[in-house]
Amino acid sequence: MELIKCNKVFDGEQRKYRHYSDTLKSEMTFSLYLPASEEPLPLVWWLSGLTCNDDNFSQKGGFQKYAAELGLAVVMPDTSPRGESVADSQDWDLGQGAGFYLDATEEPWRENYQMASYILGELSQIVKSLIPDFSGKEAVMGHSMGGHGALVLGLKAEERFSSISAFAPILTPSDVPWGQKAFRHYLGQDEKKWQEWDATALLSQTEKAPAILVSQGDQDEFLTEQLVSTKFLTVSENQPEVRYELQSGYDHSYYFIATFIEEHLKFHYQHLTN
Amino acid sequence: MELIKCNKVFDGEQRKYRHYSDTLKSEMTFSLYLPASEEPLPLVWWLSGLTCNDDNFSQKGGFQKYAAELGLAVVMPDTSPRGESVADSQDWDLGQGAGFYLDATEEPWRENYQMASYILGELSQIVKSLIPDFSGKEAVMGHSMGGHGALVLGLKAEERFSSISAFAPILTPSDVPWGQKAFRHYLGQDEKKWQEWDATALLSQTEKAPAILVSQGDQDEFLTEQLVSTKFLTVSENQPEVRYELQSGYDHSYYFIATFIEEHLKFHYQHLTN
Repeated sequence: MELIKCNKVFDGEQRKYRHYSDTLKSEMTFSLYLPASEEPLPLVWWLSGLTCNDDNFSQKGGFQKYAAELGLAVVMPDTSPRGESVADSQDWDLGQGAGFYLDATEEPWRENYQMASYILGELSQIVKSLIPDFSGKEAVMGHSMGGHGALVLGLKAEERFSSISAFAPILTPSDVPWGQKAFRHYLGQDEKKWQEWDATALLSQTEKAPAILVSQGDQDEFLTEQLVSTKFLTVSENQPEVRYELQSGYDHSYYFIATFIEEHLKFHYQHLTN
Repeated sequence: MELIKCNKVFDGEQRKYRHYSDTLKSEMTFSLYLPASEEPLPLVWWLSGLTCNDDNFSQKGGFQKYAAELGLAVVMPDTSPRGESVADSQDWDLGQGAGFYLDATEEPWRENYQMASYILGELSQIVKSLIPDFSGKEAVMGHSMGGHGALVLGLKAEERFSSISAFAPILTPSDVPWGQKAFRHYLGQDEKKWQEWDATALLSQTEKAPAILVSQGDQDEFLTEQLVSTKFLTVSENQPEVRYELQSGYDHSYYFIATFIEEHLKFHYQHLTN
């Protein structure tokens, strides 16, 4: 593993690493923010959206100020396996940059597209070894495809994450074009198997949901087709820990994220230090 | 003039415009942040560095939170004229993306490279017409080449700007490779003419300097060759309004800017509302 970049920001270090992942059979990069705090650090996962890599949030998210103030380590994985030997498609919403944070079962994807196992397993071990004094507590958050990822991984590994949050997430991937396309290719035609990676389906099977915060801009250009909330809101009606906030005038961009990242990190902090 | 993008951020609007500049004889873009405040708005100019355009600061500067809180409009011009009919070079530090905020006198540059006149004249008029209730007060700031630009334009139009600030500026362009190359091409061989566009030379001719704040990271990779401060510090010794702050561990990146932008905007706010 190699540290390829390190920038001081808000007294802490924004680091970027390169490593070979055995799980993904691919060279990967990831970014990690370590605040200067000498207290034990909880770890927050940030999962990015379609076409992104680990740089988008570190450069445009404006989160470091709050991570520094609250004393949170934040890790940003890439959004898929990468490289010439890794399966890909011509489309920006399938293949490299579009891993959907699941473990693929179908050809030609299953050899490399094991993002859920990578994040919950191999990368977790690496990242925890890089935090000088890890508090043992974790939270997960993300944007769009990464909001789907945060909800799904957070609900699947519920014992592990104190809280989950998402900006403009794909809430019901089984019902919308982005999710259906990804699931058909990565998981196959059997739609029953899709439910395992669908946040709304997982939430409907949960008796007592963990603390979840969802922020959604009402001027988001993908809201009505890809980020539909109807089923999710129904399923979460009797879940007192689930909060869905519609923000007036905001779109799908990182400007939206930058505006509400303080609220999200404070939400996680509260649960991580409880 | 055309509004080509508008994103809500921290309750305000991050806008991007395209227009044809008569001064530059070139299609130009610029960005403008307007906070939601209903008070009269002062205007802060941000001048970016080499290779940048008007997007870098708007996406990576993390300034909108403070501009919103303080009630400041912020305008971000591009760093040079643009387009196929505009003179350029193969080098990233000369030509398009490297206008140096001056008015060129030499061929082939003088036809388009009139950035000082564009910013102080044509663009000022346009921007002021876009601010619903302009307070009449202005400040100027920038990074690297844009820090040089902020100091030079701020000192040349001293009656106009309440305060000037710069991150990692080229303080003595006449003495360092970036500045010497640009000045030789844009202004010609006569080094006496360079003094008109050299912040340290201008400051040495000023009896009572305006309020100036300079922030410089001590791990900046360009510090010892391009951002040399010796002469500037000597010249500003008897200038009580000039502050030069060396920040330990910070480099030349936008992470440095994001960390100290709150301090800079509060510095300007104090002078803009005095």
